[in-house]
Amino acid sequence: MSEKPWGGRFASVTAAAVEAFTASIHFDARLARYDILGSRAHAAMLARQGLISEEECHLILEGLDAIALEIENNTFVFRPALEDIHMNIEKALVEKIGAAGEKLHTARSRNDQVALDIRLYLRAETIRIIDLLKDLRTAFVHLARRYDNTVMPGYTHLQRAQPVLLAHHLLAYYEMFGRDSGRMTDCLKRLNVMPLGAAALAGTGLPVDREFVARELNFPKITANSMDTVGDRDFAMEFCAAAAIIQIHLSRLSEELVLWSTEEFSFITLADGYCTGSSIMPQKKNPDIPELVRGKSGRVIGNLMSLLTLLKGLPLTYNRDLQEDKEPLFDTVDTVSQCLAITAEMLSHTIFNTDRLTAAAGAGGHMTATDLADFLVTRGVPFRKAHAVVGKTVAYCLEQNKALTELSLTELQRFAVEITEDVFPLLTVAGSVASRRSVGGTSPDRVHEALNLAEQELGIR
Amino acid sequence: MSEKPWGGRFASVTAAAVEAFTASIHFDARLARYDILGSRAHAAMLARQGLISEEECHLILEGLDAIALEIENNTFVFRPALEDIHMNIEKALVEKIGAAGEKLHTARSRNDQVALDIRLYLRAETIRIIDLLKDLRTAFVHLARRYDNTVMPGYTHLQRAQPVLLAHHLLAYYEMFGRDSGRMTDCLKRLNVMPLGAAALAGTGLPVDREFVARELNFPKITANSMDTVGDRDFAMEFCAAAAIIQIHLSRLSEELVLWSTEEFSFITLADGYCTGSSIMPQKKNPDIPELVRGKSGRVIGNLMSLLTLLKGLPLTYNRDLQEDKEPLFDTVDTVSQCLAITAEMLSHTIFNTDRLTAAAGAGGHMTATDLADFLVTRGVPFRKAHAVVGKTVAYCLEQNKALTELSLTELQRFAVEITEDVFPLLTVAGSVASRRSVGGTSPDRVHEALNLAEQELGIR
Amino acid sequence: MSEKPWGGRFASVTAAAVEAFTASIHFDARLARYDILGSRAHAAMLARQGLISEEECHLILEGLDAIALEIENNTFVFRPALEDIHMNIEKALVEKIGAAGEKLHTARSRNDQVALDIRLYLRAETIRIIDLLKDLRTAFVHLARRYDNTVMPGYTHLQRAQPVLLAHHLLAYYEMFGRDSGRMTDCLKRLNVMPLGAAALAGTGLPVDREFVARELNFPKITANSMDTVGDRDFAMEFCAAAAIIQIHLSRLSEELVLWSTEEFSFITLADGYCTGSSIMPQKKNPDIPELVRGKSGRVIGNLMSLLTLLKGLPLTYNRDLQEDKEPLFDTVDTVSQCLAITAEMLSHTIFNTDRLTAAAGAGGHMTATDLADFLVTRGVPFRKAHAVVGKTVAYCLEQNKALTELSLTELQRFAVEITEDVFPLLTVAGSVASRRSVGGTSPDRVHEALNLAEQELGIR
Amino acid sequence: MSEKPWGGRFASVTAAAVEAFTASIHFDARLARYDILGSRAHAAMLARQGLISEEECHLILEGLDAIALEIENNTFVFRPALEDIHMNIEKALVEKIGAAGEKLHTARSRNDQVALDIRLYLRAETIRIIDLLKDLRTAFVHLARRYDNTVMPGYTHLQRAQPVLLAHHLLAYYEMFGRDSGRMTDCLKRLNVMPLGAAALAGTGLPVDREFVARELNFPKITANSMDTVGDRDFAMEFCAAAAIIQIHLSRLSEELVLWSTEEFSFITLADGYCTGSSIMPQKKNPDIPELVRGKSGRVIGNLMSLLTLLKGLPLTYNRDLQEDKEPLFDTVDTVSQCLAITAEMLSHTIFNTDRLTAAAGAGGHMTATDLADFLVTRGVPFRKAHAVVGKTVAYCLEQNKALTELSLTELQRFAVEITEDVFPLLTVAGSVASRRSVGGTSPDRVHEALNLAEQELGIR
Repeated sequence: MSEKPWGGRFASVTAAAVEAFTASIHFDARLARYDILGSRAHAAMLARQGLISEEECHLILEGLDAIALEIENNTFVFRPALEDIHMNIEKALVEKIGAAGEKLHTARSRNDQVALDIRLYLRAETIRIIDLLKDLRTAFVHLARRYDNTVMPGYTHLQRAQPVLLAHHLLAYYEMFGRDSGRMTDCLKRLNVMPLGAAALAGTGLPVDREFVARELNFPKITANSMDTVGDRDFAMEFCAAAAIIQIHLSRLSEELVLWSTEEFSFITLADGYCTGSSIMPQKKNPDIPELVRGKSGRVIGNLMSLLTLLKGLPLTYNRDLQEDKEPLFDTVDTVSQCLAITAEMLSHTIFNTDRLTAAAGAGGHMTATDLADFLVTRGVPFRKAHAVVGKTVAYCLEQNKALTELSLTELQRFAVEITEDVFPLLTVAGSVASRRSVGGTSPDRVHEALNLAEQELGIR
Repeated sequence: MSEKPWGGRFASVTAAAVEAFTASIHFDARLARYDILGSRAHAAMLARQGLISEEECHLILEGLDAIALEIENNTFVFRPALEDIHMNIEKALVEKIGAAGEKLHTARSRNDQVALDIRLYLRAETIRIIDLLKDLRTAFVHLARRYDNTVMPGYTHLQRAQPVLLAHHLLAYYEMFGRDSGRMTDCLKRLNVMPLGAAALAGTGLPVDREFVARELNFPKITANSMDTVGDRDFAMEFCAAAAIIQIHLSRLSEELVLWSTEEFSFITLADGYCTGSSIMPQKKNPDIPELVRGKSGRVIGNLMSLLTLLKGLPLTYNRDLQEDKEPLFDTVDTVSQCLAITAEMLSHTIFNTDRLTAAAGAGGHMTATDLADFLVTRGVPFRKAHAVVGKTVAYCLEQNKALTELSLTELQRFAVEITEDVFPLLTVAGSVASRRSVGGTSPDRVHEALNLAEQELGIR
Repeated sequence: MSEKPWGGRFASVTAAAVEAFTASIHFDARLARYDILGSRAHAAMLARQGLISEEECHLILEGLDAIALEIENNTFVFRPALEDIHMNIEKALVEKIGAAGEKLHTARSRNDQVALDIRLYLRAETIRIIDLLKDLRTAFVHLARRYDNTVMPGYTHLQRAQPVLLAHHLLAYYEMFGRDSGRMTDCLKRLNVMPLGAAALAGTGLPVDREFVARELNFPKITANSMDTVGDRDFAMEFCAAAAIIQIHLSRLSEELVLWSTEEFSFITLADGYCTGSSIMPQKKNPDIPELVRGKSGRVIGNLMSLLTLLKGLPLTYNRDLQEDKEPLFDTVDTVSQCLAITAEMLSHTIFNTDRLTAAAGAGGHMTATDLADFLVTRGVPFRKAHAVVGKTVAYCLEQNKALTELSLTELQRFAVEITEDVFPLLTVAGSVASRRSVGGTSPDRVHEALNLAEQELGIR
Repeated sequence: MSEKPWGGRFASVTAAAVEAFTASIHFDARLARYDILGSRAHAAMLARQGLISEEECHLILEGLDAIALEIENNTFVFRPALEDIHMNIEKALVEKIGAAGEKLHTARSRNDQVALDIRLYLRAETIRIIDLLKDLRTAFVHLARRYDNTVMPGYTHLQRAQPVLLAHHLLAYYEMFGRDSGRMTDCLKRLNVMPLGAAALAGTGLPVDREFVARELNFPKITANSMDTVGDRDFAMEFCAAAAIIQIHLSRLSEELVLWSTEEFSFITLADGYCTGSSIMPQKKNPDIPELVRGKSGRVIGNLMSLLTLLKGLPLTYNRDLQEDKEPLFDTVDTVSQCLAITAEMLSHTIFNTDRLTAAAGAGGHMTATDLADFLVTRGVPFRKAHAVVGKTVAYCLEQNKALTELSLTELQRFAVEITEDVFPLLTVAGSVASRRSVGGTSPDRVHEALNLAEQELGIR
């Protein structure tokens, strides 16, 4: 249609605009090293199977190495007109080594090639994230070790509930990020499968050896169905879902760090390097890093939603929509990696204000009321009755403006004759904490047990 | 903590890493022209109010113009160490004009400054998107005009249901994108409000004139509450929601274009420029553009989810989390703009295969069964009864392997005596289409009415 | 396939299972009164156009009234086998009044009928939500009036930044929910359009009068394109997006209420009725209502996501997928309505602890540092320089362990000779707050201005 | 505040409204049997540890059994005023057995109790879903076996690309749902951990035996940190993410079923029981089940989004927000289970129209062009060159209006001298399919291999 009756704005939509719209080189360039890695293994296989000569293979490998070097040195020129990373590299190879280069794409299609590239990339990144999770868990263990005697209020509903050890609170995060590590490891099972050989969608008639390629690239398995192979992006969805849960955990931690940094809580002092100040109000220190980490839960969740929406209702096998899988995946990898690394380092520079924590744990004097109830239970009072008795006792305390610990035995016995002298140690913060010896509980011996175990798991003992 | 016992990976998290993590200059540089626009108006106000001298104002305006020119010419050097666009420009200004530059930030905070910049940016982009929506609607009207006599099957459940005019189907999209235009226009009401003067959060004690700044920047109103002003990102959420609905509409259209391009439907031929082919199978033409547009619904919806998650549970007023508002917003603006523009142009180059459409509309010969029922209704048969009668008639047709139009009057009257000769024109595709004269229906006169109205609205008549 | 080799689990998937899977009566029963309302208007139109007799119309109206009464009295029996609300009512009508009932569905299809029902329902609910937003805004205005002299710390990054009036903070929410009201009102524009007459998808050949039906049902407009009409669910997406923003606002408020209820902040005391306690720790009062309201942002955002995903990539016109539009819509209506109502009432029963707020506003004594900088600006010191000077002054205060207000004039002048006696009133909390007289600022006169305006808008003056 | 100046609407927000807002019994009643199961194990442990007597234990177990029976028989009266399932059952127990019932809650809190209930519930449902996945995979294997010789076009971009076996296409889904099974199994690892004993948040001071409870309830492990235990909802997020991927797979399948049911494709005939018809157009059969299954991807993704949003930014440990975890979880369980079951059964009743599939596979005659290229590669022509040669050959075919198979050897050799007589078998549909013998490819021997393997995995051989 040569006449465009609706005027000038369309001038911008030319062939170049279409090219720009469909090109992926601006983001898939990051797959370069994996594309080359995959091509190396593919070339080796082609030679082994007699589909190319040993000499052609040699030329291809040399050519690819040269390109890899150029990319590493930032001298490689990416050409948007060649659309994607695969064509950029293949074209450069042909320009370098001639006809042999034209044989590299034998028995391969971009559909299985890109599947291989993403899997190689994501495998490396997943392993790196598992390492970063270990670093972060290590940071928690170090903190817990450093503050292994500090008490603080344990909260439910953000209301002070029962005194706990700070180390116990920190080790809750050790557990959370430990599950993340498990999820990432499980992702690998389905990700770490070699797709090459599916070709466009139906497999290839050429005598390839897929198992050889898998061994070369350290994949324990090859994919089982060629049509599934080129249309499958489960690994991206699963990874992004696992990453979203990591980021949710980071957001919960960050929320606590922001809270604890307030004037009102004053439980921690973040290191200056992780905050911004205001030259006009030097006492003001904004917890920028935790705020940003918390905020970044938005993008990681958004990326997951992008991928799920993308794949909804797509018929088999490859559809161009799938090109949109990479940006949310890459952004998720970057965001989660950065947040894990920076949080671990920030934690290691965080000072806990033990005086404030201790004072808060003891404030009011009623946080050990449950201990009084438990005491009564051990004396045979049914729990619901014990519960009611303690309610009345605390009400009396409030009326008399006394802490629970300040009541005399006589006063206590007015509420329940079962109470004896040996209740008093349990009503102190230290006594309360020490008593919670159920496995996984906050008593110092249980927490030290947990710490020891964690250090063993991390291999830092 | 000087010793980092968990080894080398943290080496990368240095002050530079924190800087990189918190910097926004790599994405907020796109606000440069709006930052300068806002600063110009602010400086003019400061001079008018005697907070700076006329000469200082003159220097500032000249300096900002010079910086604007450098940015336009790509000679301006953005410095990541200065974190964001605001500090990059202010610092450059001070370097250019000295002390006067240090007065620009008088009675202003980055909190209200960034609110102004985003509003200016988003206002311009929203207006552009409204224009692009108009272009797209124009493309539909042109197509509808070009094919104003072509019939096709109307579908429900992707099953052929009743014959309609192709033009009628196309104008359904005219309506959909018309509502989008209305939503974007409504967004402007809440977006087009001037925030400067809120300062950090509490307003300023300096004698500013907010209404003057608003007039300078063509804002009809100023914000009413300083604390709300610096914490408000409603406009971003609302814009992204409206954009998501646009993209959903585009995904529905794209789905149809992909379907219609299949061998099985063969209703349209997309222009080569909007497809990729395969040199090995020249008959194969992949509808890449509609596939990508459909896929990009993922990122637009993901961006909306990012923003909503970001803002969930944030206390007033400004929190650093809010820095994360820009990337989803920018990506949404870019994606929706590109998709609208490229879709409009692609449509204008799309050929509808009228023979296939016409043939499909007539195929089977039962798509006008509803018309027979309606005929009976006009002869006094209760609708549910008429419905049942026609069911039996069509069953008879299938049994006899005849089309409805092939039945004789005698045959028809066997099912309902109310049927007379004048039913036959109604049972043809043309007759059926012509009969649906309810307002908004598919009859040619109604569709031409709609076309005329659309052309008036668009100002192309 | 008569033999089912994979055993017993499928026994459950019988025709009944299919029926259960496809039925909607368990949720669309709530549309009953709107279905009847729509049918009444439709019947009146049919009679007016001569498509049914006056007597038939009379019978239909009487029959529908009787059914409406039964539904109201909970004596109507909904039959799942009849699938949806439309067939349940039509069948009951036919059973009541015979043949005339079989004429009601003349010139109508379930596709346009359900579109009408949802629009009638959602219009009523949207108006109710606008009322509830007004109630909530009224609650803020009442609170602001009650506490119109109380100061508190204004926060950025959850760090105390500058003193503000509590009333100013509360009125920030007045603004936020005011925008929500605007968005809901804008929704109505696109929702309040009459769809009946689109029939299955192509319009009808019978001589209907759509404008008459619109007038009867108080719709200002009729839909323009029949195919668009039956496939359009924009109103649901738009409503749910607007509702999501409301719920985000509620989540921000709830977060603050939870924070303010902590022992650490102690800014408010929620009424007992909105909390749960613990009989064992009577001093513990959990802010359950704000926690639940905050949590419910999840479902409202999830519902929006559901709808967007649902509509992604659906070809025109009606597809059965659309049946899934109702549950997220209904749940959103219910959730947002309940949260708005309960929050408004809870707020009206909330006590602000003015002593704590006032003390917090004055604590530290450096929150007025910006005022000192602004003072210097009025004496001609460039802002950036003033900023630096104040930074040094506050550093000196910290070193000397003094508040800014405790410095003598001589001490102050050491940092800037421009400082004079009249700076002191500005450095007090009251002076600082009073000084921020920019429009929309926190000074008492500005806040009272805003309060008066709000009361006018709400019609409560 | 006794006077409510904003009028009557608040009348509805009474204590009852608060109760209704906070109650969960209307949805958590479904946890009843798991609550009882957990309580049984807890009581046994209390007795074993001497915290209650054997007789008390006996009474409790009898009481719980009686309640379980009442619930099963629908004679148990759930009382909303008792808020949740835990209190409903405990209260009923106390009413039945008196004082012993008041001891059941010893060393337990609702925080760890609800964690136990959900884990027990979700464990059972996850195992059921794994079974349903197996059923669905079995349905694919049966279909593949039934149609093991049928060819059809393989699609990329919804364009016919290369012929494949229908069985190969079906087995792609076998793989997809196999991965889902793996993910669900991995979920179990983190879900199947016993939480009881964490008590409110800090563990308990009473001498419980958590390992005993775990053994009783068949948990291989107990949770490690009490604070993590009561705040952890990872299992819900992880399950919902895995479920979302299942539903995405179902949506892809459903999209294909809808497409294949169109007049244009006509590849399948769904059984009547899974469609709705139209009595007026008996030939019209709407694929309602696949449409609904496709649409339900919206709610499952929305539920995941709800949960992620819910947990974002929540501080440790238990917050009331967490009550909102159940409805999205339950709805996900229900939706995915139903969709899996109904899809499996529907598939087993689906007829593939083998004539249409075969005809479509052969149509045009160019779908085997890649085979010609591969032939040339085996004759030493570089792939890119072979690719270009075939392009020219097909162009010639189109010009001559011939199929590739219709060219004579002489004609073929005009394009490449390397072509010999033995190319012809490869250019037929059967020859092309047979040639793709790479592992995972579509050749009959590979597909039969895959089928055999699948049947072994499923244990149906």
